[in-house]
Amino acid sequence: MLDQRILPRKVEFLSINNVADVHDAIKNMVVRGAPAIGITAAYGVVLSAIQHNDSDAANVKKKIAKDIQMLMTARPTAVNLKWALERMQLCLQIDSKDLFQALEDEAKLIHAEDIAANKTMGELGAAFIDQHSTVMTHCNAGALATGGYGTALGVIHTAYDQGKIDNVFANETRPWFQGARLTAWELQQENIPVSLICDSAAASAIQAHNVDWIVVGADRVTANGDVANKVGTYSLAVLAKHAGKKFMVVAPTSTIDLDTATGDDIIIEQRHSEEVTHIADKAMACEGVNVWNPVFDVTPAELVDVLVTECGAIENPNKDKIEQLFGKSHTK
Amino acid sequence: MLDQRILPRKVEFLSINNVADVHDAIKNMVVRGAPAIGITAAYGVVLSAIQHNDSDAANVKKKIAKDIQMLMTARPTAVNLKWALERMQLCLQIDSKDLFQALEDEAKLIHAEDIAANKTMGELGAAFIDQHSTVMTHCNAGALATGGYGTALGVIHTAYDQGKIDNVFANETRPWFQGARLTAWELQQENIPVSLICDSAAASAIQAHNVDWIVVGADRVTANGDVANKVGTYSLAVLAKHAGKKFMVVAPTSTIDLDTATGDDIIIEQRHSEEVTHIADKAMACEGVNVWNPVFDVTPAELVDVLVTECGAIENPNKDKIEQLFGKSHTK
Repeated sequence: MLDQRILPRKVEFLSINNVADVHDAIKNMVVRGAPAIGITAAYGVVLSAIQHNDSDAANVKKKIAKDIQMLMTARPTAVNLKWALERMQLCLQIDSKDLFQALEDEAKLIHAEDIAANKTMGELGAAFIDQHSTVMTHCNAGALATGGYGTALGVIHTAYDQGKIDNVFANETRPWFQGARLTAWELQQENIPVSLICDSAAASAIQAHNVDWIVVGADRVTANGDVANKVGTYSLAVLAKHAGKKFMVVAPTSTIDLDTATGDDIIIEQRHSEEVTHIADKAMACEGVNVWNPVFDVTPAELVDVLVTECGAIENPNKDKIEQLFGKSHTK
Repeated sequence: MLDQRILPRKVEFLSINNVADVHDAIKNMVVRGAPAIGITAAYGVVLSAIQHNDSDAANVKKKIAKDIQMLMTARPTAVNLKWALERMQLCLQIDSKDLFQALEDEAKLIHAEDIAANKTMGELGAAFIDQHSTVMTHCNAGALATGGYGTALGVIHTAYDQGKIDNVFANETRPWFQGARLTAWELQQENIPVSLICDSAAASAIQAHNVDWIVVGADRVTANGDVANKVGTYSLAVLAKHAGKKFMVVAPTSTIDLDTATGDDIIIEQRHSEEVTHIADKAMACEGVNVWNPVFDVTPAELVDVLVTECGAIENPNKDKIEQLFGKSHTK
């Protein structure tokens, strides 16, 4: 597994041999990004099946089910983790001749569906972007965060290929610097013009450089269209509204959590204070200082101009429109 | 002189023995903050007088004048540096019996006036803050940036002493981390409860922790009340307006530039990309990435609820009110 924690300084792959390794890789952010976490966890279940294949049939399923529960706890906010693991869990209930093969097929299917969904979202999202646009993105919702291609960066990639994008602003995205480390690197690899900025410079960049669209991914979208995403996203949505610019969320339907009514019902994951106080093992703040370090924030639906999913793009998303989308996708 | 570059890891005082040391301390950011730079330079002129006191009277003045010109170049963009050195220069033109004493008195006066202005602003600003308030500040506008006490932190200090403040959010303030390194440290020294956050967490902190006031300093206030301050300030003003919270700018009248009509006339200084791409000599971004790194941004006057100066506080500042303030302060 590509170790995203040390990118772009080093391109290094970790050997992941068992389900515990997968749990730790997700927990310690070797891999991050909601869709990528889901896909990784699915493959983790396949590793679990390999580990337990010396047990008898009933016991294997019990042991795999236990591992699924363990994987479930790796990261709390990303709904894709739960969604992918529930799909894997269903395979346990089907009486297949070859359980391992069934699980591997399902994991590969989850992976392939994600890439296909990204490409569809790329097309649907790019349709909203005009010629000579400048866009801004936050965190990393690119190939590294997904099965490949990306959600927000997938839209930017497609729009760029269509000749519509002049420049991309990538916010560095403290405390983990996913924008500096991953997004700028991904865009540079793809020869898409990118300007890296501090998160605090977003407001003036939007004004001074006439940013047309802010395009972000999502960790979870609630039934009413509220969006949980990397901390700093909500701020960008407010700034876009204030400046009369547009705000696009790109998220596969697997990210939409119909069981959660609104963003108020999401418990925001808090992480270690050291992520804020220390950088590269060097203290940036006084010892013992109190830190508030939420990973995500919630952008209310009314600040979202477009929600792009693989089943369609919704302008000004709300509960009814999202229900309709699911109705449509279910009858497909 | 307290070496602010290594705070808060080390509290270390440098021995400053001559005017060349003072020049270097300002240039190399041992001291920063516009008022603090002006005061430091004024004391530098006193050191110059000590160094040259073996010369004859006419020669001493010539040598001191030369040193003043040298100090002027330490940070060419800092307005207070010029302002303080011009006051010291005037002392050379007055025929005093004891030139050294006259210079020392003037430096001490500049210093004392700054502290007095800060305390006055502290009282005026704190009057707007209610019991059980939570406030947020950006960058460092504290004792370290001034002759002592601080502008924005002076207001927070006074309001805290009046029992009005429950908690202070300090934004880390990328790319230089003045909030993490200096503001959190200052507040900790004063036993004022402080929570350090990433700049991108400000929007959710304002909501989740019910921040009542955002209190900041200013690098320059234009004739119409637009405010140039550390990058990220403008974003906070927009967020405050969106959330129905209040935004206070604390700046001595020496910061108000009546010769500049509006914020559009301010050329925003751009700094090295390495400030963004490298932290503690470690690369956080891919090599060769394009960076946009403005030091300041401009908050339009209409987003400022209160402008606090040592001559009075102005609600909803505009050109007329600022002119009135100067009329009043001149006839004092």
